[in-house]
Amino acid sequence: MIRQGELLRNIYSPKDLKKLNRDGLPQLCQELRDYLIEYGSKYGGHFGASLGVVEITAAIHYVFNTPYDQLVWDVGHQAYGHKILTGRKDVFHTNRKYKGLSGFPKRSESEYDTFGVGHSSTSISATLGMAVASRNKGEHDKQHIAVIGDGAMTAGLAFEGLNHAGSENANLLVVLNDNCMSIDPNVGALKKYLTEITTTQYYNRFRDELWNLLGKFGSGAQTMGSKMESAVKAVVSKSSNLFEALNFRYFGPIDGHDVIALAKLMEDLKEIPGPKLLHCVTVKGKGYAPAEKDQTIWHAPGQFDIESGERIKAPSSTPEPPKYQDVFGKTIIELAKKNKDIVGITPAMPSGSSLKFMMEEMPDRAYDVGIAEQHAVTFSAGLATQGQLPYCNIYSTFMQRAYDQVVHDVATQNLHVVFCLDRGGLVGDDGPTHHGTLDYAYMRCVPNLTVMAPMNEVELRNMMYSAQLKKNAGPISIRYPRGQGVTVEWEKPFEEIEFGKGRMLKEGKDIAVISIGHVGNYITEILPSLEKEGIDVAHYDLRFVKPLDEVLLHDIFKRHLKVLTLENGCLQGGVGSAIIEFMTDNGYSSKVKRLGIPDNFIEHGKPIELHKECGYDPESIKVVVKAMVSQKEFAI
Amino acid sequence: MIRQGELLRNIYSPKDLKKLNRDGLPQLCQELRDYLIEYGSKYGGHFGASLGVVEITAAIHYVFNTPYDQLVWDVGHQAYGHKILTGRKDVFHTNRKYKGLSGFPKRSESEYDTFGVGHSSTSISATLGMAVASRNKGEHDKQHIAVIGDGAMTAGLAFEGLNHAGSENANLLVVLNDNCMSIDPNVGALKKYLTEITTTQYYNRFRDELWNLLGKFGSGAQTMGSKMESAVKAVVSKSSNLFEALNFRYFGPIDGHDVIALAKLMEDLKEIPGPKLLHCVTVKGKGYAPAEKDQTIWHAPGQFDIESGERIKAPSSTPEPPKYQDVFGKTIIELAKKNKDIVGITPAMPSGSSLKFMMEEMPDRAYDVGIAEQHAVTFSAGLATQGQLPYCNIYSTFMQRAYDQVVHDVATQNLHVVFCLDRGGLVGDDGPTHHGTLDYAYMRCVPNLTVMAPMNEVELRNMMYSAQLKKNAGPISIRYPRGQGVTVEWEKPFEEIEFGKGRMLKEGKDIAVISIGHVGNYITEILPSLEKEGIDVAHYDLRFVKPLDEVLLHDIFKRHLKVLTLENGCLQGGVGSAIIEFMTDNGYSSKVKRLGIPDNFIEHGKPIELHKECGYDPESIKVVVKAMVSQKEFAI
Repeated sequence: MIRQGELLRNIYSPKDLKKLNRDGLPQLCQELRDYLIEYGSKYGGHFGASLGVVEITAAIHYVFNTPYDQLVWDVGHQAYGHKILTGRKDVFHTNRKYKGLSGFPKRSESEYDTFGVGHSSTSISATLGMAVASRNKGEHDKQHIAVIGDGAMTAGLAFEGLNHAGSENANLLVVLNDNCMSIDPNVGALKKYLTEITTTQYYNRFRDELWNLLGKFGSGAQTMGSKMESAVKAVVSKSSNLFEALNFRYFGPIDGHDVIALAKLMEDLKEIPGPKLLHCVTVKGKGYAPAEKDQTIWHAPGQFDIESGERIKAPSSTPEPPKYQDVFGKTIIELAKKNKDIVGITPAMPSGSSLKFMMEEMPDRAYDVGIAEQHAVTFSAGLATQGQLPYCNIYSTFMQRAYDQVVHDVATQNLHVVFCLDRGGLVGDDGPTHHGTLDYAYMRCVPNLTVMAPMNEVELRNMMYSAQLKKNAGPISIRYPRGQGVTVEWEKPFEEIEFGKGRMLKEGKDIAVISIGHVGNYITEILPSLEKEGIDVAHYDLRFVKPLDEVLLHDIFKRHLKVLTLENGCLQGGVGSAIIEFMTDNGYSSKVKRLGIPDNFIEHGKPIELHKECGYDPESIKVVVKAMVSQKEFAI
Repeated sequence: MIRQGELLRNIYSPKDLKKLNRDGLPQLCQELRDYLIEYGSKYGGHFGASLGVVEITAAIHYVFNTPYDQLVWDVGHQAYGHKILTGRKDVFHTNRKYKGLSGFPKRSESEYDTFGVGHSSTSISATLGMAVASRNKGEHDKQHIAVIGDGAMTAGLAFEGLNHAGSENANLLVVLNDNCMSIDPNVGALKKYLTEITTTQYYNRFRDELWNLLGKFGSGAQTMGSKMESAVKAVVSKSSNLFEALNFRYFGPIDGHDVIALAKLMEDLKEIPGPKLLHCVTVKGKGYAPAEKDQTIWHAPGQFDIESGERIKAPSSTPEPPKYQDVFGKTIIELAKKNKDIVGITPAMPSGSSLKFMMEEMPDRAYDVGIAEQHAVTFSAGLATQGQLPYCNIYSTFMQRAYDQVVHDVATQNLHVVFCLDRGGLVGDDGPTHHGTLDYAYMRCVPNLTVMAPMNEVELRNMMYSAQLKKNAGPISIRYPRGQGVTVEWEKPFEEIEFGKGRMLKEGKDIAVISIGHVGNYITEILPSLEKEGIDVAHYDLRFVKPLDEVLLHDIFKRHLKVLTLENGCLQGGVGSAIIEFMTDNGYSSKVKRLGIPDNFIEHGKPIELHKECGYDPESIKVVVKAMVSQKEFAI
């Protein structure tokens, strides 16, 4: 268990928190911070973000009447303190573990979690919905609070929410947690703007000082005619701040680690109707020196030693296969050195995608565009029209946010953009908001797209290589999973992969298994033991979801009456579905069973635990293969 | 042909335009306007938007070196003048006709069309991509111009583009065409803000006058210490404008119909590097009085009489079936009167969706959130958490832009939101950017969703009714096409449709046809003549893509060895695919042929022309049915 200070020990809900004197809040915050640091050191998880909002968390639950008042945490990385103060500290050690607490706020977990989050920038829209609902229901005393980072504020969805909120007379408080960081440092004009407000504090001073100044020169100056006066008023009080331009009342910037000042100000804000924004300046990782120093690494550092700040890594005596993301990150540099048209794009994931390597080595040719998946894709489209060749790297789950841009801006125009979809399939600890389960289905229905997935690191390299060999090859999607591959010595010379060509890995007569992507290695893994049991499996690596390798598929369906398909993706409309479309269109009638993700949201856990739950871990596959082979007349 | 004035007559490309004296531009604009009015009166099409940008169009092509300089029209409704000045006036009568010119800019149509558009708000991102590409290629003289409306500016994608552009040192000019209109009047805080800038012109005056004022009180005032001075400077010159806050240089507002002033200013702007925004105030429909007066109707009024301004409607002697959109618009009011939880949401399509009826009758319960599909969905999710029941109406093609919000904010949390997807399937004249071809595929793979499509107006009514009968019924999608239905007397008493229940419309023994949605009426239409030819067709209306009616499908596959599926949607992963998934999973092996939209982008034309092209107009279906029935051993 994690040690608790004397105040935290007695807090099981915000009700208990409210019993403290306001002066007790700093100590409570220190205890909460100590708890988080000890938790992080023992269990890992998202770390820096929650440390940065300890005071904001305490102040909100101290001042507002949660859960009646509605509090939404944007993204939710930062909600650990919130979970601990709202009755979950005794089970918090199960956080992010299979069947344990979710790493993100989740409606089914607690009434204090008003809105499930994971993807960024949803909080303003969701909270506005709640505020309008309260207005409609006559609950005029209800407060609605969205806590959103300055990184999340760059996403279009947040702006859409602000734009609507600014014209609705609804009771909404946006708490802007301005720490200049997402996972990586934030980028873009908005960040500069916020920094400028903050570092100079011009804005606050100006309003007062202008009036003082005008006063100084006699009362005539302040009343020198309505034209001038209203001009000053309009510009200074309305338009002199980006948020006020959008009709929000702006407060701040305030030190987001001064919990007493925060609590006082929030108390006042409760009385002010309409949309308002409180700008809090915070430090990610606040209170733990190593985390403050290197905020990207300490976003989710894994376990560590508290005293030394050293991160604990599992010792490895043998060389390990690389992460797929690093294969991407290193390979794109190799390719870009040879092909001057190649550029790299990431929406705020330089570390997660490993595009950071290219950003360091070729800063002019690799762009972090901020949390802005839509823009990342349309920006890529614009680049492609001029003969540049963008490799646009977006996690599978986040690509959902750029779907229209893939269809409308890239595919319709058949532009040569290479989409690298990292984190395809079940990602593990982050759970349902982050699983990349749908991309095969939503990508393969888009005309002009080439959709492929590598089974290992060498294949990924070669797919990235092959994607740039032909000019104007149209849009291409390469999808690979989170985590390690299987090949220690993966940096082999490039080899072209012909578009639309799958490969036979092993001949066999009893059954054909067609796999796509990394999970094909499960088949490789079980083949020897199946062979020992006298079962002769043919294994095909499809490689291309689109175009399908029709020659290969004809061959398979001519030779096999039993076919098993395997994908780390949804069964509805997925790769197996593409294969049975081919089968049906061509008049074959083999018995086909499709393995993949069933039609429900899969919770968090280790990938292998989740694959087992979905019935396609190696053991489960073996059972299915044996059942299919043993039945002369195959039935499910 | 359309009459041309003496200047326009000699203009076949911007080169010819450049031969005019600047003083000749007003006359040219008048002639272009006359051309557009005559064209509109004879051929219909998008009308108001192009009239509003005549001067902007002429000025840009006069000043800039198109097509070397890159000009992107946001949405593209307004690009008629552009097309006429760039070599397409002699074929302009084919605009929006099958095999004719596209109603939108299109790369394959002209080198002057640098970026294909149709969906809004893509222009800043795309043009920034072009500008960065030019920088990378060392083409420092190249200009990049995005023309975007104030409505399109409310979409998140536009903001993402601004945020990135403001931090890239790239040569980008955004021309903001501020007419306070999209198709309907614009909404939101940004609109108010722009109106404020414009109507008062405070901003421009303020900069000068403040300094004059300070000067008035002696030189000491202007130098009263660096603190005050830098505060004034920072706020006034940097932050006093929303666009300047995002690091754009802001120019305007300027009268967007003063072509000489526009040309002069653009000439100057060519010399100013970096991101800049020119704010032009225009009037939609400018120069044609009826269009200026009722801008929504005159967005795309159809043919009209120039003199009287009367719109020409095809005379109808018999009562006509309603448009599906009106069935939605009227039914939601009926339902909302009975169910106090129901609210309506549209992203900037009150007229197109017919939610305007509810907005008029129940203004507190129907929301136009601006061009902001993402926000529309997440806002709906927020409303649903509080027990409100949102009917969120978004065109199928635009729902692509809110895909992540459907998955992440609504479906993951199993919130009861009813999505009404208007314009499903091939929409006709608007072409590939507007066809709603993918939704069955991208919706049915999302867990928790119920996906349905009505075959006619009564079914749509009953689906809308049934969607609100049970509390917390989870997310529901109802998809229907553009245009008229088939039922004149459609306002019948509501009847519940059981979720997941299809219906048999006709028994038959030779073949089973399973249709989904409105195209099922094609089957109804051809049944009599097939019957005459002795072909006995069973016809099923599937109604639910998800959950599938497994009882019905078992019955069909037990009884039929030949099955034809029909959908107005993509074949890859679509409804037919769902049916063969069921078939394969359950060990059936009927011969199935799937009719729907093939795997390429379909151009514009009348729906029936396009259905024929795709092989599922009534005649084509008949041919397929007969071929399938006549072959004992069915083959494609």
